[in-house]
Amino acid sequence: MKHPLKSIVLLLHCDDQPGIVSAISREIFTATGNILQLDQHTTDRSEGQFFMRVHFEVNAQGYEKFAESWPMTAQKYNARWQLYDMSIPLKMVILVSKIDHCLFDLLYRYSSGEFNVEIPMVISNHEDLRPMVEKYSVPFHFIPVNADNKREAESQIMQLAGQNSDFLVLARYMQILTPEFIEKYPGEIINIHHSFLPSFKGAYPYQRAYERGVKLIGATAHFVTEDLDEGPIIEQMVTRVSHRDNANDMKIKGKNLEKLALASAVKCTLERRIIRYGNRTVVFT
Amino acid sequence: MKHPLKSIVLLLHCDDQPGIVSAISREIFTATGNILQLDQHTTDRSEGQFFMRVHFEVNAQGYEKFAESWPMTAQKYNARWQLYDMSIPLKMVILVSKIDHCLFDLLYRYSSGEFNVEIPMVISNHEDLRPMVEKYSVPFHFIPVNADNKREAESQIMQLAGQNSDFLVLARYMQILTPEFIEKYPGEIINIHHSFLPSFKGAYPYQRAYERGVKLIGATAHFVTEDLDEGPIIEQMVTRVSHRDNANDMKIKGKNLEKLALASAVKCTLERRIIRYGNRTVVFT
Amino acid sequence: MKHPLKSIVLLLHCDDQPGIVSAISREIFTATGNILQLDQHTTDRSEGQFFMRVHFEVNAQGYEKFAESWPMTAQKYNARWQLYDMSIPLKMVILVSKIDHCLFDLLYRYSSGEFNVEIPMVISNHEDLRPMVEKYSVPFHFIPVNADNKREAESQIMQLAGQNSDFLVLARYMQILTPEFIEKYPGEIINIHHSFLPSFKGAYPYQRAYERGVKLIGATAHFVTEDLDEGPIIEQMVTRVSHRDNANDMKIKGKNLEKLALASAVKCTLERRIIRYGNRTVVFT
Amino acid sequence: MKHPLKSIVLLLHCDDQPGIVSAISREIFTATGNILQLDQHTTDRSEGQFFMRVHFEVNAQGYEKFAESWPMTAQKYNARWQLYDMSIPLKMVILVSKIDHCLFDLLYRYSSGEFNVEIPMVISNHEDLRPMVEKYSVPFHFIPVNADNKREAESQIMQLAGQNSDFLVLARYMQILTPEFIEKYPGEIINIHHSFLPSFKGAYPYQRAYERGVKLIGATAHFVTEDLDEGPIIEQMVTRVSHRDNANDMKIKGKNLEKLALASAVKCTLERRIIRYGNRTVVFT
Repeated sequence: MKHPLKSIVLLLHCDDQPGIVSAISREIFTATGNILQLDQHTTDRSEGQFFMRVHFEVNAQGYEKFAESWPMTAQKYNARWQLYDMSIPLKMVILVSKIDHCLFDLLYRYSSGEFNVEIPMVISNHEDLRPMVEKYSVPFHFIPVNADNKREAESQIMQLAGQNSDFLVLARYMQILTPEFIEKYPGEIINIHHSFLPSFKGAYPYQRAYERGVKLIGATAHFVTEDLDEGPIIEQMVTRVSHRDNANDMKIKGKNLEKLALASAVKCTLERRIIRYGNRTVVFT
Repeated sequence: MKHPLKSIVLLLHCDDQPGIVSAISREIFTATGNILQLDQHTTDRSEGQFFMRVHFEVNAQGYEKFAESWPMTAQKYNARWQLYDMSIPLKMVILVSKIDHCLFDLLYRYSSGEFNVEIPMVISNHEDLRPMVEKYSVPFHFIPVNADNKREAESQIMQLAGQNSDFLVLARYMQILTPEFIEKYPGEIINIHHSFLPSFKGAYPYQRAYERGVKLIGATAHFVTEDLDEGPIIEQMVTRVSHRDNANDMKIKGKNLEKLALASAVKCTLERRIIRYGNRTVVFT
Repeated sequence: MKHPLKSIVLLLHCDDQPGIVSAISREIFTATGNILQLDQHTTDRSEGQFFMRVHFEVNAQGYEKFAESWPMTAQKYNARWQLYDMSIPLKMVILVSKIDHCLFDLLYRYSSGEFNVEIPMVISNHEDLRPMVEKYSVPFHFIPVNADNKREAESQIMQLAGQNSDFLVLARYMQILTPEFIEKYPGEIINIHHSFLPSFKGAYPYQRAYERGVKLIGATAHFVTEDLDEGPIIEQMVTRVSHRDNANDMKIKGKNLEKLALASAVKCTLERRIIRYGNRTVVFT
Repeated sequence: MKHPLKSIVLLLHCDDQPGIVSAISREIFTATGNILQLDQHTTDRSEGQFFMRVHFEVNAQGYEKFAESWPMTAQKYNARWQLYDMSIPLKMVILVSKIDHCLFDLLYRYSSGEFNVEIPMVISNHEDLRPMVEKYSVPFHFIPVNADNKREAESQIMQLAGQNSDFLVLARYMQILTPEFIEKYPGEIINIHHSFLPSFKGAYPYQRAYERGVKLIGATAHFVTEDLDEGPIIEQMVTRVSHRDNANDMKIKGKNLEKLALASAVKCTLERRIIRYGNRTVVFT
């Protein structure tokens, strides 16, 4: 009997008030659990928000007990929370168009075991990347999108991915999702934007970075909201450029950043390190 | 007779055309000069711009000859150029308000010999930093500015610094210079902006960075133009922040960046590494 | 009555065992304290070490109660711990020789309020930096060291600083402290080494980095131990160099790193974020 | 007739002496060439070495002329040089064992057009990575190595790759090449070492970095020489780690660095930006 213990993560967000850590840690202890890592953050007194990530180990019986009693405690503190059994990998559906470096990077990290994740399918509005995806034995769905069929296409995506995924990743998916889709989809949607937001929102960021003459370019992984490129930021990375780099060189340099920033955001999602609140994130790293 | 050779830097910008490097290097060779470093850049064919920095050594006689003959060669290529005898330090006048970290950093690098520069004076619209400046035996001029006397104050600055400086540095000077002043002042004016431009132009960048929830903050050294925070960028630096950093923590972290980015821009100026063109810079590092 | 609450930090290290977080957080809650930040780390099961930093607020009465009861709890878990009232600044004594950039940077951060610290004195084996130190109204002690008087000099340092400091900082102090001094001095001793340890231990690291042709140089802040440059690392920083940088350019670039790495290590000390164990550190940032 | 011009790179290294730039640029101009980029570096007077990379465009006839006359000029300056027609991609043979991330990254950059390179084959001492390689339509050769057949294996590698490659890349090839092989192979051999050299030379660098408690880990791409991990460094990259990262986490973080550092070294090779001299490199970026 090698691994009789469950590995559990609890994410929690509520108004700050004395006694929360004590209540939670006692409840874990009572359930015979052992805390491996606890990271907690309270904002400035003016905002007064409390955030916590607890990673603990507990046997199956203890976990059952905790899962039963915990919701009442949470209610007492009026907390939003999520409880994860880490042995159950999250399901990530990837949307992509034709640019393949982010997709490719995610599939490699998936196949190499770096990501503990299931990929039920990849969805694209083009057929181009089907062979690459199928090499990894991941189902590929082609859902074309044009000016006339956007809603229909989105409802196909919803049908395929809605119940069959925990979160979506837009790995350079060149279609803007409608507010209706974003609202209806039950999980988070993560996008990679090829600029250092809030600089160069919208299209052609590298061209515009080149024209502005910046000395650093960046990439930003963020949650998708109704407002284009305005969602909560999860991860940002930059690299140095100079006059020797034209807009195309910047694009190539940027690809490395996009891969790294998106991979980091996905990794934090898989390890349940992210709490979103308002237009910001707490990422417990 | 220790250093009989002069150390010379030539900066040059013109339309691209064959033979420029050959013409210049021949002229240096003919003047018995020896090239220590030559860095040259040509933009995309569509733009077709040629930039060069040559650093060479030559004896006094050779230099005289070169300085005499060179302008005709330059005219042939319709080039903008600047020729510097590196033994003559540039004169930098610093403008500052009350925030002292950038001023302090510049003065330290000046006094420690890291910068080969003269500082004829520091000008401020407050008296606060007089003692710090006078400790370094640098003259301090107090020129108050308010809604009514701006033009008068600027003409005082012009009178003091106009002929007595090669460039100005706004080391957190909290007054916006008028377009008239910028146009009239004969040298470059360098500003340090406490954000990663073009993000968070204008006031309170750290507060706004905090509110936007970015994961990196930055600082930008740029040339001052009529359009606030839109001038050619010289140097940018960033550092990582997290949810644990409030707007004040960001401000403290940002100070390190501001010092480093401004120091780098000043160093590149002193070593004559910067060519400005349109709204961009070529920085030969 | 503005700040009726005390701001308290508890650092703790013991063997891992269930219930510690619960016990501590209950004890804080019982004392009517409110946890602002709790960061906890448990090593791999094989090592089984538990580390925690708790920052909480509590009124004077509650703190008294906690300070009284807490040691018994700690004993139960066989824990090493330190309890700090954050309103009492730590006392830092700086040792320096002739190279001044680190000293200067620390004094500036102290005088500007960035560091919440007392500096009872600066000690040097040269007179050179006395004027700079006295500008900041910090007492300066000259204790010359040579081959014959090392022990005597150290005992003078001990007499001056032994009871009058919480920790020592070697801000480019070019004397090697004897194992006897290190053992006898009651607090930590922090050194800044001008290389990316464990590369280039010992003397002339920039020259050796130049000769090895590395593409990045670094600086390392570490605790001083008997074994030269082998103590627990607190902070490391690097910057890019190229063939254009000779050993002297590297030295100048390195100075920026040394200042930043040492400042970061001092800041973490002042905020009581560091737990040392074996030859490593846990730095709760 | 779209691209009637050839794109040529000349790399050159000799003792410093006046007139070299002039001679070369005149010769290019005489051949009706146009210099796109010229980067030149002279070491300290004590070493007195001259390095240059010139990138120029010239028509076929002019190139013929230049290629004919140039060697005599070079001889005059006693220069080591290489002349490249950039339309002819270099041939890179990859050696790999079982760890696949670097191989995978190189193949992706090759297939996506980021690298202008030919890959005539991949050679491995294990069969594991054959399917991945053959997906890219690149020939795969299995050459097992053990204690007894090392020389024989190397002579097989030489037979396959000796005449059919411009350089070799050891993309985590876990066999040490003999000095005889290194000497006999006509091109450069590039290795990726998973530490920030000269720290942690040899085996298990991440484990040793973990044990030493460093705060940054790195990767180093270098030329292979007889002395293990002592060859000239081409590129180095680092990333931050903390107490939260165990040796395995470091390994995963390190993989990103290894890919980026190796990709950068390969890109510089393909763009003919590297001049090796003694135990160092000049990389014109």
